[in-house]
Amino acid sequence: MAETQIRFGILGCADIARKVSRAITLAPNASLYAVGSRSIHKAARFASANGFPPSAKVYGSYEAVLDDPDVDAVYVPLPTSLHVRWAVLAAQKKKHLLLEKPVALNVSEFDTIIEACESNGVQFMDATMWMHHPRTAKMREFLSDSQRFGQLKSVHSCFTFCADPDFLKNDIRVKPDLDALGALGDIGWYCIRSILWVADFELPESVVALRGPVFNEAGVILSCGSSLHWEDGKVATFHCSFLSNLTMDVTAVGTKGTLHLHDFVIPFEESKASFSVATESGFTELVTGWAPLPSEHTVMTDLPQDALMVREFSRLVGGIKKSGLKPEKKWANLSRKTQLVLNAVKASIDKGFEPVKVVS
Amino acid sequence: MAETQIRFGILGCADIARKVSRAITLAPNASLYAVGSRSIHKAARFASANGFPPSAKVYGSYEAVLDDPDVDAVYVPLPTSLHVRWAVLAAQKKKHLLLEKPVALNVSEFDTIIEACESNGVQFMDATMWMHHPRTAKMREFLSDSQRFGQLKSVHSCFTFCADPDFLKNDIRVKPDLDALGALGDIGWYCIRSILWVADFELPESVVALRGPVFNEAGVILSCGSSLHWEDGKVATFHCSFLSNLTMDVTAVGTKGTLHLHDFVIPFEESKASFSVATESGFTELVTGWAPLPSEHTVMTDLPQDALMVREFSRLVGGIKKSGLKPEKKWANLSRKTQLVLNAVKASIDKGFEPVKVVS
Repeated sequence: MAETQIRFGILGCADIARKVSRAITLAPNASLYAVGSRSIHKAARFASANGFPPSAKVYGSYEAVLDDPDVDAVYVPLPTSLHVRWAVLAAQKKKHLLLEKPVALNVSEFDTIIEACESNGVQFMDATMWMHHPRTAKMREFLSDSQRFGQLKSVHSCFTFCADPDFLKNDIRVKPDLDALGALGDIGWYCIRSILWVADFELPESVVALRGPVFNEAGVILSCGSSLHWEDGKVATFHCSFLSNLTMDVTAVGTKGTLHLHDFVIPFEESKASFSVATESGFTELVTGWAPLPSEHTVMTDLPQDALMVREFSRLVGGIKKSGLKPEKKWANLSRKTQLVLNAVKASIDKGFEPVKVVS
Repeated sequence: MAETQIRFGILGCADIARKVSRAITLAPNASLYAVGSRSIHKAARFASANGFPPSAKVYGSYEAVLDDPDVDAVYVPLPTSLHVRWAVLAAQKKKHLLLEKPVALNVSEFDTIIEACESNGVQFMDATMWMHHPRTAKMREFLSDSQRFGQLKSVHSCFTFCADPDFLKNDIRVKPDLDALGALGDIGWYCIRSILWVADFELPESVVALRGPVFNEAGVILSCGSSLHWEDGKVATFHCSFLSNLTMDVTAVGTKGTLHLHDFVIPFEESKASFSVATESGFTELVTGWAPLPSEHTVMTDLPQDALMVREFSRLVGGIKKSGLKPEKKWANLSRKTQLVLNAVKASIDKGFEPVKVVS
């Protein structure tokens, strides 16, 4: 029996929507159904350039997408400052919600979004694609293995890319009225999510932002970092920046094992992804080398991680639509924890690098 | 013409002295000549177990090694608290000095050592072996290349190992009267050295220790970390611990390039060592992967890094002995900078994680 096809509407023609349109096409249980832009011409161009079927609806507003009764779900890649308005309206119109990160400017706004999703019975998921790669599940097996990894002690995450002059001048991610969280919201989101993921989503007790964040003239963060501290002594650090060469590291160190990867957000290649693990690493006699050596593991995937994300989201939506299941709250919880820590880091920066408690 | 053979005396029978004895044997311009221990039996056992020639001198005290006129240079792997006493005495006895790290408990003690070396015309070098691996020079070429690496923006270094219960109870590195700097002195030394090395030994303006260091009952650091901050905005972090699986990372990120290695202190294999670099990393169309991909570089070495260290030290000593050259001050300068930053991190921990200026 063919799977339920979830019909997607897309709000806006952001660059990332091109990638997600392809992912919707690739996912076996989803299809491109509508796109809306403030300019209907732009929407039409987007639809024709991104594999929308000839029957797809092209709208000159976001509202029109939400008013289309045949749209099951919307993907919202709008600037962060617009999330609360459009996400809430989408939920009210009973559209299931795949929302770009950062999910909101702050936790209070995000709670408004989640309340709207819950009261309208719609599924929420943020678009953190790497969560859905089979590599992620494989790495979780390692981190959960008390024999191979032991007890988590420290994590380091780094996500940087070198924005070009046009980006630094014009991109929404450097505009205080659009993505006020700047690099912290855009790529720090991934660092924080990766750290929480390694920690099995146990929230840190406190964060302390690193000194020396870089701001643009409008006060938007271009580069920053933080340490995160747990009650049991676990510690994490991250660094995110628009001003350095593209780098995407996660290192997790436990009492017995170590995990390394260098492409955690976007794997180097689409059809496979690797990570390195080591367990009870030690030295040869006279410390002339290591024994055992770390080992590399490669995980193949038929579908890219973004299509797997769309497939999982659509599966949940299908369960609600066809079988009357309740929305899965897990994804909103993970988003909320990420946003909580992100805002604590921002608060620490604003308070002159004082420790800030992470209060759920 | 055969190279000048530098005759080494070793003070004490520390475990690390076994490795360095082998290195002295391997270096073409050095030879094992004497070993002294508070127990002459222990010294004799050490000499016979570690390749000393039958003619080697075995002494029942450190003084006796220093009093032997045929000893050119001494390797001093004694506990840190004994460094100033024995290093100064060695210099006064005109013995060139290869000193284990951390070089001293603080900069003031180290300055006493250096003054003794300078006034007695002896060569100083600390035993940070990886500085002498040809991989290090190869990585320096990358970091110095404005086209491939650009301007340095951030560094992260991590050195941890999982000490066994016996180490945590009995090793000199957890004893306040022997190696009071604990994990910070023992392995944090390498982290700090690697960060300074990446920064071409430009000192940071300040450091801020990370919260949550772990101490043993005697108050010795078992785990800690810090951020380092430069005037131009460069930032570095490190984490060192006796309580986590063996991990040895350096990541350096510049505006144009990224360097990764995971075995910076002790290469995975003795005869070759690798590192990964990337330049102007970016994504494929639709961000389905990376282009270009990072590349792996492997550097072969005929001699292990410890023997290369001994060879370089002995070359400098030979120049002083045979050609009347002045001692090379570079190595003492690098040691002093490392010690300066190390003590600033310790001061930040002691001051409740306040920023501490690094004052040369």
